Amino acid sequence: MAHASPSQPTLQVWFEFASTYSHVAVQRIDAAIAGRGIRLEWRPFLLGPIFHQQGWDDSPFNIYPAKGAYMWRDLERLCEKHGIPFRKPSRFPRGGLLASRVAIAAEREPWLEDFIQRVYLASFAEDREISSPDVLMDLLQDVGCATASVWIERAEAPEIKLRLREQTEQAIALGIFGAPSFVARGELFWGQDRLEDAIEWSTSHE
Amino acid sequence: MAHASPSQPTLQVWFEFASTYSHVAVQRIDAAIAGRGIRLEWRPFLLGPIFHQQGWDDSPFNIYPAKGAYMWRDLERLCEKHGIPFRKPSRFPRGGLLASRVAIAAEREPWLEDFIQRVYLASFAEDREISSPDVLMDLLQDVGCATASVWIERAEAPEIKLRLREQTEQAIALGIFGAPSFVARGELFWGQDRLEDAIEWSTSHE
Repeated sequence: MAHASPSQPTLQVWFEFASTYSHVAVQRIDAAIAGRGIRLEWRPFLLGPIFHQQGWDDSPFNIYPAKGAYMWRDLERLCEKHGIPFRKPSRFPRGGLLASRVAIAAEREPWLEDFIQRVYLASFAEDREISSPDVLMDLLQDVGCATASVWIERAEAPEIKLRLREQTEQAIALGIFGAPSFVARGELFWGQDRLEDAIEWSTSHE
Repeated sequence: MAHASPSQPTLQVWFEFASTYSHVAVQRIDAAIAGRGIRLEWRPFLLGPIFHQQGWDDSPFNIYPAKGAYMWRDLERLCEKHGIPFRKPSRFPRGGLLASRVAIAAEREPWLEDFIQRVYLASFAEDREISSPDVLMDLLQDVGCATASVWIERAEAPEIKLRLREQTEQAIALGIFGAPSFVARGELFWGQDRLEDAIEWSTSHE
């Protein structure tokens, strides 16, 4: 990953591996930023603690059935529109805790973005159980990581667990309440449908 | 309002006068459908009973502060982007019951769409109290209705009250859980950011 020059526009991508609309954002973001010279900063966080603060112990898409039914149909349409593979998972939400810890541990690895995209594909196009260490090891190998088991081990180190907790706290401090969210020059955008607005903001509001 | 030929694409616009994002949709819809030959069907309904079913006795933007803070900033940005007048109202949500009844009563009037757009401007750009009959009479006159007080009276007729209740029941039956929503050839789209997708659907899926 190249280091940013001070003037290079950056876009923070706040994502949660359980989030359906994050799948859309993560798979289409490279096309969306193509040629814009934008550096992406990947920020995994957990929605569970945020939902818990709002009094929810499950995804709002499960708690509110009309919202859930709509979301699955909307997701199907969006994936068709953008040419993104999609199959409704047999379980929702799937725990993204371990995958998030791997993403934190691997933040400087060249395969980080490939890994993130690969995990979403596994969950939302291949119906695989991304909370399983074995599945994650397969996915790490898929993206060219030769030492998959090492990364699974690193992901469970106390300092990595702490950093994910801190990053979730930082999400709350930024006013984040859902995923995906984008932060561009301090401005918060929520939802994959705000990706283009966030990109514009990152490059045009100097 | 011209009668539709059987093959003319139609787009149902389900809106609630208290809804902030409906302001954006309603003000930009004419530009969005320009030249597409689409007939709009205006469908006022009430979110109160729908939110009540979900256990909410207020707007979720008031119940969940982070969501609310984000929405007001997002709305400001969207209105700036689309050139739509906006000023944060001093009271939210404002009761849209009477205005919705007027819109039901006036469904065949040539000034219906102008009235709907005028009410949203009053609420979300001029900070006026749209639940007041006097304010609504002013707004009716603004759009060229010569018999404003007659329409306020008609809006309170038992059959109009019943029709608004029935329309809200129909919204629930369609799976609607927020506003604005669009129905195009039986397909539901939620949110002003899905307006273009709904327009495409209404014209391209024969």
